[in-house]
Amino acid sequence: MNHHDAPAARSELDMPVERFRQLGGDMLELAAQWLAAEPDAPVLRHCSGVELAALFEQPPPEQGIDAARLLEELRDKVLRHSRHNGHPRQFAHVCASPDPVGALADLLASAINQNVTAWRSAPAAATVERQVLHWLDALVGFDGGGHGLLLGGGSAANLHALGAAVEHAQRRHPGTARERLVLYTSRETHLSLAKAARFLGVGHVRSLAVDAARRLQPDTLRAALAADRAAGLVPTLVAASAGTANAGSIDPLAELAAVCGEIGVWFHVDGAYGAPAALTPAYAFLREGFARADSLSLDPHKWLYAPFDTGVLLVRDPQRLRDAYADTSEYITVTETAPLESHAFWDYGMELSRRFRALKLWVMFKLRGVDAYRRAIADNIALRAYLDRRVRAEAELELLASDLSISCFRYRPAGADAAALDRINAAIQAQLLATGEIVLSPTTLDGRYSLRVCIVNFRSRRADIDWLVERVLAFGRQAHAADRDAAR
Amino acid sequence: MNHHDAPAARSELDMPVERFRQLGGDMLELAAQWLAAEPDAPVLRHCSGVELAALFEQPPPEQGIDAARLLEELRDKVLRHSRHNGHPRQFAHVCASPDPVGALADLLASAINQNVTAWRSAPAAATVERQVLHWLDALVGFDGGGHGLLLGGGSAANLHALGAAVEHAQRRHPGTARERLVLYTSRETHLSLAKAARFLGVGHVRSLAVDAARRLQPDTLRAALAADRAAGLVPTLVAASAGTANAGSIDPLAELAAVCGEIGVWFHVDGAYGAPAALTPAYAFLREGFARADSLSLDPHKWLYAPFDTGVLLVRDPQRLRDAYADTSEYITVTETAPLESHAFWDYGMELSRRFRALKLWVMFKLRGVDAYRRAIADNIALRAYLDRRVRAEAELELLASDLSISCFRYRPAGADAAALDRINAAIQAQLLATGEIVLSPTTLDGRYSLRVCIVNFRSRRADIDWLVERVLAFGRQAHAADRDAAR
Repeated sequence: MNHHDAPAARSELDMPVERFRQLGGDMLELAAQWLAAEPDAPVLRHCSGVELAALFEQPPPEQGIDAARLLEELRDKVLRHSRHNGHPRQFAHVCASPDPVGALADLLASAINQNVTAWRSAPAAATVERQVLHWLDALVGFDGGGHGLLLGGGSAANLHALGAAVEHAQRRHPGTARERLVLYTSRETHLSLAKAARFLGVGHVRSLAVDAARRLQPDTLRAALAADRAAGLVPTLVAASAGTANAGSIDPLAELAAVCGEIGVWFHVDGAYGAPAALTPAYAFLREGFARADSLSLDPHKWLYAPFDTGVLLVRDPQRLRDAYADTSEYITVTETAPLESHAFWDYGMELSRRFRALKLWVMFKLRGVDAYRRAIADNIALRAYLDRRVRAEAELELLASDLSISCFRYRPAGADAAALDRINAAIQAQLLATGEIVLSPTTLDGRYSLRVCIVNFRSRRADIDWLVERVLAFGRQAHAADRDAAR
Repeated sequence: MNHHDAPAARSELDMPVERFRQLGGDMLELAAQWLAAEPDAPVLRHCSGVELAALFEQPPPEQGIDAARLLEELRDKVLRHSRHNGHPRQFAHVCASPDPVGALADLLASAINQNVTAWRSAPAAATVERQVLHWLDALVGFDGGGHGLLLGGGSAANLHALGAAVEHAQRRHPGTARERLVLYTSRETHLSLAKAARFLGVGHVRSLAVDAARRLQPDTLRAALAADRAAGLVPTLVAASAGTANAGSIDPLAELAAVCGEIGVWFHVDGAYGAPAALTPAYAFLREGFARADSLSLDPHKWLYAPFDTGVLLVRDPQRLRDAYADTSEYITVTETAPLESHAFWDYGMELSRRFRALKLWVMFKLRGVDAYRRAIADNIALRAYLDRRVRAEAELELLASDLSISCFRYRPAGADAAALDRINAAIQAQLLATGEIVLSPTTLDGRYSLRVCIVNFRSRRADIDWLVERVLAFGRQAHAADRDAAR
């Protein structure tokens, strides 16, 4: 080993607080300029993968650069080629405009860098997380007492629910191989559930038929459960959707819960996107379904406008998570009367090190109040309804599906056949993307190419919807004409 | 549905940029004060779980509070009851002092809120992540071309490696049930690996014996592999450690790799804690082992001082991740010549939404240069060696294990039997914790209660080690006297 004296002097990484204030001020200003530019900037600037890779390619930087140069690179390379997810006409996927307050809370979370493994290592952070879980549980009407944990997102929450359901099924049916377990989804369910089943070795995934409104019907589920049980398989988890990512459709939760109750199979609701709608009067009916679920996924980084990553899994019976995730070799029985100090999140999931994700939610709710988010969600829903009305009013547009804050529609000129309609709408989508002024992500509904708008953005206003409709009409007419020309 | 007009006016969540600057400045100042206080504050203030819960307990806050009040609550409730992980005498677990530069980068990551699902949604962020993977791969000598992905931490990285190994084993041995798969670990391996096996339904976990230096020996592994194969089981993944969390012990990686090569079983190295030591000349020998591994876990939020959460999984053959994680229903063949634009991280792991974790690493390396981290790591190792010398020089202290930046030792007065030594050292640990000046986390080595120091902290200096040794001696003498009195 080389000679290396034990260090006595201050480390160069131990930044003097004045320098931290200065660099922090510069970073904050970069963020402020990003936010200020967001309403007017193009949603995304074009740059090829090769060009972008060349911009960043360099060997590991042995020596540092000065702060001014770093800030320049951040602005000209990173920010310049990042999508403005908070842009008022960013309607793709389910990608929220982030609440700037949440971003500021994330600064503090990283500065104090709590490792939220357990109360004993991070008392305040663990307490805040459990408080936030209580709030979310009550706010959406799950009413389970706030049991569960924060995770990276809906995929992780769904995976954790299925993992616990596997353990639960195997305890109820000892000796059952995973190959005989069955997960129930519909054709509209988020793909993370089937992926979780494959990951965990769950033998069967039922992708059940839906009705015309893309909702899983109780009789369909009941028949599938009965057939599998007759075949000696073990129903393990039924995953219903409270707002599919595709079209925002909502399964009849309470009725599906009743079917699950008949045979005692785990009823999970994927509300990663849609669950926060339960805060609004229009979607308060969701609460009845949530209150009957065994578990619920909910992503505050979607429709509560929290920065990434902030997912939540709520469960009704925390013992089921402990059965699956607690290390039995040093098992601690946690009871109602046991001290809060013994709470360890690793008994409830697969993560050991855990970022202080709850801080941003706590700060957001405390500073803004829940009602501000309720109003923003209601605004998004109202905007979707406004888009629906505009689409219905235009003879050339056809509404294909609509719920929550998602609307699917297409340009449908007279005289175009099915294949032409797909081509024309794909051309509209490409043209919108090329302008950089509006970003949608398309989908396919019953085999038809559809434009799709998802509004989880507190900056989107009526004028943005008007802009979108005008552009779709204009690009649609161009695309239709070009398509007819090409056919000649 | 209630009447709700489509919104035309600006949302209350759409914070004016001036207010963002102001609140941001206040948050930054909170963070600055935390950093400034860190060297002198108690590591952790005492407060019971019940008291702390009462501080935070309130119904969901329907209405907001003003910023001054929020900042006060952050300071007096959250920060006051958070552990100072960057305190120079915070030696517990493997919990790094966070680089303040990383915290500032996290502010920007949350403000621009890229969702790093795929290049097409976050071009700059995806490019930065792949660049950072290339850097880390080269820096520690994995030399695999930078394939892999960023994850939440070592547990997730180990889980992803095992998940891919399960798929790989089942492809090589079609029709093999998971019950017949075997994971190989040693008694010293991190518990996340056995937990991952249980989660995935891997039938067998071998917890193999280690030598006196707590290292898994090649012959032990070879014998276990042979016995299992003879019994018709399928070796799936061998997990070696490059620095156990317990005592920092390093398995003979290259030799174990050779054994794995004999039968083609996946060789994984858990370097979550220790891998960055490969940057230093003293531990450059690790590179030879890494270069022969199929996969490597490495946590920049441990020994590269990045804020949580920042874990890395590097793999030699990216196709193995795609085989396990890509959605085969819309499979995209990614080849060397295919455009970078087609890269989707969801083809490589279980996460869909993904925080821009790579930004802090990019900013840290760019601003400081890699060499600054190399020196800090070498300092930590030198400090551990200094502690070892101090322990060896004291007749009342006994060094039990030591490697990388972990040192395990105990107070061992003459005339105390094994049970008394355990009691005395547990009393020292409790007394240290009670002072709030020094935080260790104890461990058990060969049945003996051991004090354990893990230095992944660029603030720890020689004086802190001296302080620790003095306190252990003083508390040890008190505890020994009390123990003798109690025995009378």
